[in-house]
Amino acid sequence: MANLITLTTDFGTRDHYVAAMKGVILGLADRARIVDISHEVPAYDWRGAAYVLGACHREFAEAVHVVVVDPGVGSARRALAVETRRGWYVGPDNGCLDDAVRESGFVKAWRIVKAGRAVSATFHGRDLFAPLAARLAAGLATDGMLEACDWRPRVRALQARRVAGGASGRVVWVDRFGNLITTITREDLSKAKTVSGTVGKRRVERLLRTYAEATDGEPFWIWGSGGRLEVSVRQGSAAAALGVSAGCSARVSGR
Amino acid sequence: MANLITLTTDFGTRDHYVAAMKGVILGLADRARIVDISHEVPAYDWRGAAYVLGACHREFAEAVHVVVVDPGVGSARRALAVETRRGWYVGPDNGCLDDAVRESGFVKAWRIVKAGRAVSATFHGRDLFAPLAARLAAGLATDGMLEACDWRPRVRALQARRVAGGASGRVVWVDRFGNLITTITREDLSKAKTVSGTVGKRRVERLLRTYAEATDGEPFWIWGSGGRLEVSVRQGSAAAALGVSAGCSARVSGR
Amino acid sequence: MANLITLTTDFGTRDHYVAAMKGVILGLADRARIVDISHEVPAYDWRGAAYVLGACHREFAEAVHVVVVDPGVGSARRALAVETRRGWYVGPDNGCLDDAVRESGFVKAWRIVKAGRAVSATFHGRDLFAPLAARLAAGLATDGMLEACDWRPRVRALQARRVAGGASGRVVWVDRFGNLITTITREDLSKAKTVSGTVGKRRVERLLRTYAEATDGEPFWIWGSGGRLEVSVRQGSAAAALGVSAGCSARVSGR
Repeated sequence: MANLITLTTDFGTRDHYVAAMKGVILGLADRARIVDISHEVPAYDWRGAAYVLGACHREFAEAVHVVVVDPGVGSARRALAVETRRGWYVGPDNGCLDDAVRESGFVKAWRIVKAGRAVSATFHGRDLFAPLAARLAAGLATDGMLEACDWRPRVRALQARRVAGGASGRVVWVDRFGNLITTITREDLSKAKTVSGTVGKRRVERLLRTYAEATDGEPFWIWGSGGRLEVSVRQGSAAAALGVSAGCSARVSGR
Repeated sequence: MANLITLTTDFGTRDHYVAAMKGVILGLADRARIVDISHEVPAYDWRGAAYVLGACHREFAEAVHVVVVDPGVGSARRALAVETRRGWYVGPDNGCLDDAVRESGFVKAWRIVKAGRAVSATFHGRDLFAPLAARLAAGLATDGMLEACDWRPRVRALQARRVAGGASGRVVWVDRFGNLITTITREDLSKAKTVSGTVGKRRVERLLRTYAEATDGEPFWIWGSGGRLEVSVRQGSAAAALGVSAGCSARVSGR
Repeated sequence: MANLITLTTDFGTRDHYVAAMKGVILGLADRARIVDISHEVPAYDWRGAAYVLGACHREFAEAVHVVVVDPGVGSARRALAVETRRGWYVGPDNGCLDDAVRESGFVKAWRIVKAGRAVSATFHGRDLFAPLAARLAAGLATDGMLEACDWRPRVRALQARRVAGGASGRVVWVDRFGNLITTITREDLSKAKTVSGTVGKRRVERLLRTYAEATDGEPFWIWGSGGRLEVSVRQGSAAAALGVSAGCSARVSGR
């Protein structure tokens, strides 16, 4: 596993929650290297977690990816550890792992039934997911901790729908610059050289290749670095300029 | 010392202050692993620093814990390095270390008198605490840098008071989700199955076991993952719903 | 190179951008240690990047410093790798590297022409700067990736101007506490024991040695830990108290 662990949560960095997970990990796997993907996923937004993990997990050759965005903590939702051809995906069974698992080649799913320490009702990140991830990363035994289960990647949080002459999806993430990132990929609009359409209730007409080609203040479509269609405003926030936020629809036609 | 150093500050992550400390640490202890606990302690809030360190230091088997929340920097307050049975606690003598030191088993206290580099008037984190912590973590000599002193853990920033049928404390921290974390522990209300009381000027009636049991919008008491009584609102902010912030009183009776 | 890499960007920590760079780096240089200087440089503020890097790069004995604050990404601006007597400085050619390179002893500049992977139009941090920095830090071959160029440090983003009896500069950074950090250094006011002057349109009269000497609410000049003149308010924000932000002028006389 290369001893590499990534963390994606909605814990923020103000509280001790992330550090508690890191303490647990380093106590079990003292050579682990831990990379924070994001701790600022909007609270309980498992689709946002799926997006942010999906946007960078391919940069890690082999890792244990841990996601803790978990509104169902303490309920009966399953705690999963999913083996793929490119590492493990560990987190709650709420859809946050499915897209990344599918992309990495699903091998087998396990339910985490214990993790070698007392499990609180509210902090499975520290008590279940962190110790299990540390054991997987360090190659330690997980005897009695995992139970094979019939899970398969089903949820498609990041997938748009092809429609005649275009595609229909949604804004899945608003990045720090106010760019509106949609679920629409290059493949959904395979041969299009021009793109126009609506995001929320607003029309956006032009597809540009770089920010440098844009006029300040004018919203435009652009293929983001992750291969998704985005709406941007040069030196400004598309979210603010258009009054659009995550969850809004995006419908485009391409030629 | 396992070469592990944790950092708790009110420096934020916008400025270079934390990176400067890390540069100093890695220059002296090139194998040190550094874990950020929080850099978003409210400015000068040494009680908040005590809380956030206290909430996770037990997850680290052995470490040098550095706290820099230091309104008195440049004044005559002592710079401390405190040895315990589970590692070192390094920081200013303003109460931020006392609770954690007590929990970890106080052994001996030292005053940091120099640290092998020029000391500015305003940045003891970089000039005193970081180099000293690096030396302790790496097992390097500290000759002439430490002077034994008569300090003992005295301040009890995290302790509530038992009263007839219940406990009286305060809100010590508001977490990212708006949960109000109090100083009241399970031990203060040892056998209570139900809890009711006030936080600030608002009554909160029910004690729940998990977030999943709650109705959206209704504030409730819950035992947090750190063993403290919290007020939460499912999928919302208790701080916003109740208009309560850190420092407010919390008084509960339990049965 | 000591396998040490620092990162300074305007990416924030909400998105996956920083993690993508770290995945790329660790894939090439699996022993690299990565220190975040700041990811909260205001968007496109290359002067701010110059400041925050300049404020702490001397704490790193030898490192590859990567700056990605890059409004010109996708345009013809050069991607630079600059060798100095104290490590490498890697980033876009927009002025963000010049001051640090000058301070560290300029040796030779290279243009990054490829980096061993496909280069997107919008994310040179991941596709050019990260892989090149990883190779430099790990001592891997960079054959065909770098092309010598005639760049020299020219821009002086952090330099004030001496005037009769004082100095004239600007506010280059507002830190987390609301301190206004100027471009004016101790050397610009070499023998001054007292300092008074204006920041933006407001007068500030006193120079203090420590925060502890100040009265709450009263703005004062102070020499910051990085050797620059700052305006502070004890237990408050000078930026808010004075209505001053980055870019405003600072003019002082010293005696």
